[in-house]
Amino acid sequence: MALSEFEIIQHYFHELGPRRSDVVCGVGDDAALLEVPAEMELAVSLDTLVSGVHFPADTPADAVGHKALAVGLSDLAAMGAEPAWFTLGLTLPASDEDWLTAFSAGLGALAARHGVRLVGGDLTRGALSVTIQVHGFVPRGAALLRRGARPGDRVYVTGSLGDAGLALRALRAPLSLPPDLLHGARRHLERPVPRVREGLALRGLAHAAIDVSDGLCADLGHILAASGVGATLWVDALPLSPALQAAQDILGEADSLSLALTAGDDYELCFTASPADEPRLRHRLAEAGGVLCPVGVIESRRGLRCEHADGRIFFPPARGYEHFSGSSDEASR
Amino acid sequence: MALSEFEIIQHYFHELGPRRSDVVCGVGDDAALLEVPAEMELAVSLDTLVSGVHFPADTPADAVGHKALAVGLSDLAAMGAEPAWFTLGLTLPASDEDWLTAFSAGLGALAARHGVRLVGGDLTRGALSVTIQVHGFVPRGAALLRRGARPGDRVYVTGSLGDAGLALRALRAPLSLPPDLLHGARRHLERPVPRVREGLALRGLAHAAIDVSDGLCADLGHILAASGVGATLWVDALPLSPALQAAQDILGEADSLSLALTAGDDYELCFTASPADEPRLRHRLAEAGGVLCPVGVIESRRGLRCEHADGRIFFPPARGYEHFSGSSDEASR
Repeated sequence: MALSEFEIIQHYFHELGPRRSDVVCGVGDDAALLEVPAEMELAVSLDTLVSGVHFPADTPADAVGHKALAVGLSDLAAMGAEPAWFTLGLTLPASDEDWLTAFSAGLGALAARHGVRLVGGDLTRGALSVTIQVHGFVPRGAALLRRGARPGDRVYVTGSLGDAGLALRALRAPLSLPPDLLHGARRHLERPVPRVREGLALRGLAHAAIDVSDGLCADLGHILAASGVGATLWVDALPLSPALQAAQDILGEADSLSLALTAGDDYELCFTASPADEPRLRHRLAEAGGVLCPVGVIESRRGLRCEHADGRIFFPPARGYEHFSGSSDEASR
Repeated sequence: MALSEFEIIQHYFHELGPRRSDVVCGVGDDAALLEVPAEMELAVSLDTLVSGVHFPADTPADAVGHKALAVGLSDLAAMGAEPAWFTLGLTLPASDEDWLTAFSAGLGALAARHGVRLVGGDLTRGALSVTIQVHGFVPRGAALLRRGARPGDRVYVTGSLGDAGLALRALRAPLSLPPDLLHGARRHLERPVPRVREGLALRGLAHAAIDVSDGLCADLGHILAASGVGATLWVDALPLSPALQAAQDILGEADSLSLALTAGDDYELCFTASPADEPRLRHRLAEAGGVLCPVGVIESRRGLRCEHADGRIFFPPARGYEHFSGSSDEASR
């Protein structure tokens, strides 16, 4: 006996994430009623994940729940915003209780970790897709925008790159890598860790920030375009994950670097800041449980250049993911 | 040559709806940054419309754009909230410029009429669906909730019922009605008018409110459940539209009343208030350009009863629309 729409909401989504005193009215009326602190700006971001496009159709349901919220929290992190609430638009082909149990568990675990409450949404029938809007707070004027990068800034990332791309590559064609390394990469793809604490730690120091969802080159490109500057990336300084380092012998250097530069879904933060602030940044990120990886420099000359330490130019063979243009080489999208 | 994701956003969605001074940062960064007035609560509601489920697949694109925003504005109206911003999650099978032009025109026209600004969203590839989250303001404590109905309250609606259901019926099987009546009903289905001004006019007078999206019986049922009360609806007092009145001879009385009671998508407000406030309500709604239609009474006895003026009980043959339960008789869903 299939559950009805109202039964599903009542059973799986009525109490998801910790209760918060700033939720005047949550799930169950025509709209949620929320209180934003007077000194804060409200940061909101909406993302849709479509089955077979943004995640392989056989992705475990708990990973789908995790990832759908993680990509939103990652956007808040990139703004230096503190997460508060989220809404959920869930479209399902049928009422599948096993799937709903696992999905809501994955979603709820990440929501609990970040103190965000589900306050509303919509449940509809159709091809599987998940839309989540996240809401967070940032003190007036303190948000990390894309447009503040200045020549002389260093370009940083908060962790290793290319794992998600490697996992997608391995799903497409078997790679003879140790299973634990592949498992780690797959875990990075399915359950990315949004760098929320790192984003908060960057307030007041980062000049520009973005999260790496479409690939470092593409996302840094947004900072460059918004700031009216260019950059050089130091490809030999890129923090490759252990799995990607191990895969270098199989893939070759060019392909490995290309994954680190152009594969999406890593959800590290990319930001720029003055080199003079590097000690303070390193300290703050360490306190937040994160790392600081310098990967390049902002320049007044427009465009993005990738260079080896010996000065050789590196040309990535593939670009970041782009819907509709057909330029992606990622099979699972 | 198909437009890329970024080109589509830039061309169709970068400047949609009037500019507002409370948008610190709109489309184009990791999150939008918004300012909520200190004395206001933020009301948010998210709805997904799936092609072939919530609207027939051949619905004109401008009507899809209109309706996707209208259903959200209708939720804000039912809370007595003043619309401010919206976000858009648009999933498209392909980049179709004619479709995008019409869709964004329909969306933009309604946004302009209500002063709401598009502040962010996501564009993805997949089966056609539109998710919109609306955001509005309501003074602290002034929101119209579902839970305040009291025995002795009258039940009101803000306009005629059953047009959308009639239009769906006519799409399924031809009805020999004058074309202008059918056209009017179809227009009501495709381009519903959210009762935003009416909702604002109800603040301080309505005890409970909801918008009629799933059918009067189902939606009033939500008020009854939340308020712990029952009601009797006066079926001979139901404000049937001219098209539905004309269709009564063809459909029969039972079927016509059933459409008015159980067909969804009408987007009138249903609310309860003290009969003593009826003159004030009538005046306020007239000022807002609306009408006041008494259709029943709230009672302490649980359950929802439908009665003729002579005391005969009326049993609607169909229930309101419900995803996943398979109880709907609406073919286009």
